Amino acid sequence: MKTTHKKNLIAAALVSALAFTATIAQAQDPLSSWNDGPTKQAIVAFVEKVTKDGSPDFVPTEQRIATFDNDGTLWCEQPMYFQLFFAVDRVKALAPQHPEWKTKEPFASLLKGDLKGALAGGERAMLEIIVATHAGMTTAEFEQIVKDWIATAKHPKFKRSYTECVYQPMVELLAYLRANGFKTFIVSGGGIEFMRPWTEKVYGIPPEQVVGSSIKTKYEWRDGKPVLMRLPEMNFIDDKTGKPVGINSHIGRRPIAAFGNSDGDQQMLEWTQAGSGARLMMLVHHDDATREFAYGAESKIGTFSDALMAEAKKNGWTVISMKDDWKTIFAFEQ
Amino acid sequence: MKTTHKKNLIAAALVSALAFTATIAQAQDPLSSWNDGPTKQAIVAFVEKVTKDGSPDFVPTEQRIATFDNDGTLWCEQPMYFQLFFAVDRVKALAPQHPEWKTKEPFASLLKGDLKGALAGGERAMLEIIVATHAGMTTAEFEQIVKDWIATAKHPKFKRSYTECVYQPMVELLAYLRANGFKTFIVSGGGIEFMRPWTEKVYGIPPEQVVGSSIKTKYEWRDGKPVLMRLPEMNFIDDKTGKPVGINSHIGRRPIAAFGNSDGDQQMLEWTQAGSGARLMMLVHHDDATREFAYGAESKIGTFSDALMAEAKKNGWTVISMKDDWKTIFAFEQ
Repeated sequence: MKTTHKKNLIAAALVSALAFTATIAQAQDPLSSWNDGPTKQAIVAFVEKVTKDGSPDFVPTEQRIATFDNDGTLWCEQPMYFQLFFAVDRVKALAPQHPEWKTKEPFASLLKGDLKGALAGGERAMLEIIVATHAGMTTAEFEQIVKDWIATAKHPKFKRSYTECVYQPMVELLAYLRANGFKTFIVSGGGIEFMRPWTEKVYGIPPEQVVGSSIKTKYEWRDGKPVLMRLPEMNFIDDKTGKPVGINSHIGRRPIAAFGNSDGDQQMLEWTQAGSGARLMMLVHHDDATREFAYGAESKIGTFSDALMAEAKKNGWTVISMKDDWKTIFAFEQ
Repeated sequence: MKTTHKKNLIAAALVSALAFTATIAQAQDPLSSWNDGPTKQAIVAFVEKVTKDGSPDFVPTEQRIATFDNDGTLWCEQPMYFQLFFAVDRVKALAPQHPEWKTKEPFASLLKGDLKGALAGGERAMLEIIVATHAGMTTAEFEQIVKDWIATAKHPKFKRSYTECVYQPMVELLAYLRANGFKTFIVSGGGIEFMRPWTEKVYGIPPEQVVGSSIKTKYEWRDGKPVLMRLPEMNFIDDKTGKPVGINSHIGRRPIAAFGNSDGDQQMLEWTQAGSGARLMMLVHHDDATREFAYGAESKIGTFSDALMAEAKKNGWTVISMKDDWKTIFAFEQ
């Protein structure tokens, strides 16, 4: 009995030592929220070959540009784009100053909580909502409105702030790339000024590395101070063929790695791949209805069409399965 | 005699030791091409107070944004904007493919060497020249054309390549600011894609930190590859009130230091100054006809109007005298 007891103690000590070592190993793995498998391996292999001095695929630091879509790639985009939740909340907040909205579409439907009805007016309705909620104030005022909203609003399903609904594996990927000399950029169809107030804190991506859609602004003087007024006019739509245009305009060189999740990202991945040398193109596939959402070709938001899946196969782009490749999706799960 | 000889030897050794020490001191001064005086002192005092931990004026690294105009601020702009020399050379190179230019303005005058005649058509003539020389090719093709030109073309007065006609004190200032945690940006009325191919090598400013005027581009497929075609349509003019707009669009935060040289830079300096905390605004004044050029209110290029001088005085902006503040103007002088 005594010997067995001793053996058990030793075994327990060994197990606990091993567990401790495993914990350290996990903590040291910069991609610990990724399951081991071909996707994670593809990321690590790419980073190792472009950073290894003397490798035929070596890329100088200043050319290590990686671009990321935001909605559905870095943070959740269901049940609708978070910026649309913002717009709806703004319409509600501004309604007392606009009694005419009670009978005027798309606002009347929106105020009744009928988003589908509000968006029935198509692009024109969407533009009217943007103009009413995103224009007519200074850039500084808009920044404060976004900051206040993002600090308090909650996701309807997860009951967490929107900035908690970011994908932990992608946050790790951003940090891992930066630790390897990459400059990380957001290239999103979302509003550039809607993202900038919080991307540095949440993703470690500073305002000057955020590319997005924008409305026009105008320099003028107000109360003895210069301001930039946000005008009711679109300036640039950073989606589909607009993404390579936005990349060229803001970054001025071609990414060597690009990450997206929808038909809106196809051209960014094509543009990235068309450069010479080693490249990495990946698409996040939302196939986890239990932990997040499952959607694809049938979705109206973040559509991953069958045509895109065929492009991915043809071009050798990696499709990230959220279900299989991600150990953790949100940090709040842990 | 012997003693005198010894004394002389000692004196010579002392002089040479002192000279050696002075050389070291000069080599260690990051702003060695600036004469000592209030302008240089203002730069150093500003950098010291915003970088000193615990100082009431301390600015965190990520907010240390400095913006620089290019023409007349970082490099020479006389006898005309260097990009105009580029355009003239392009018109000459393309003339064999355009026999109609022999009789069509503004090209006919340009080909006869009559620049004044060519520009008599005003903005419309200027736009026609830009379209003919800057559009109708891919972004990659245009980049190569600029690289080839900048590698071979020479300044008519200095007989040096245009990239040698950069101001040594400003190159030192850029490096000094970066050494103190600043991110340096160009914010120029010049073409963004005309600057990007050489700014990293010449100024240490990477393409993603260059803001400038632009024409529209369009994503399309050519010979089985995606390209960005440069369209014959202006996209953005990064001058005067356009500079704060360009700064907001590309950088997304307000600079704490801004450097210009003409009426086109006034709004950038106003916008910089209107932020809270320590600020530095400076204007290069071209007052050295011997070593460079002397021009001001009467100039058609890089106009430094009397109104701008009054603004500088009123707002406490420092006017840099090239004659008095700069020990060296061009590196090739040394």
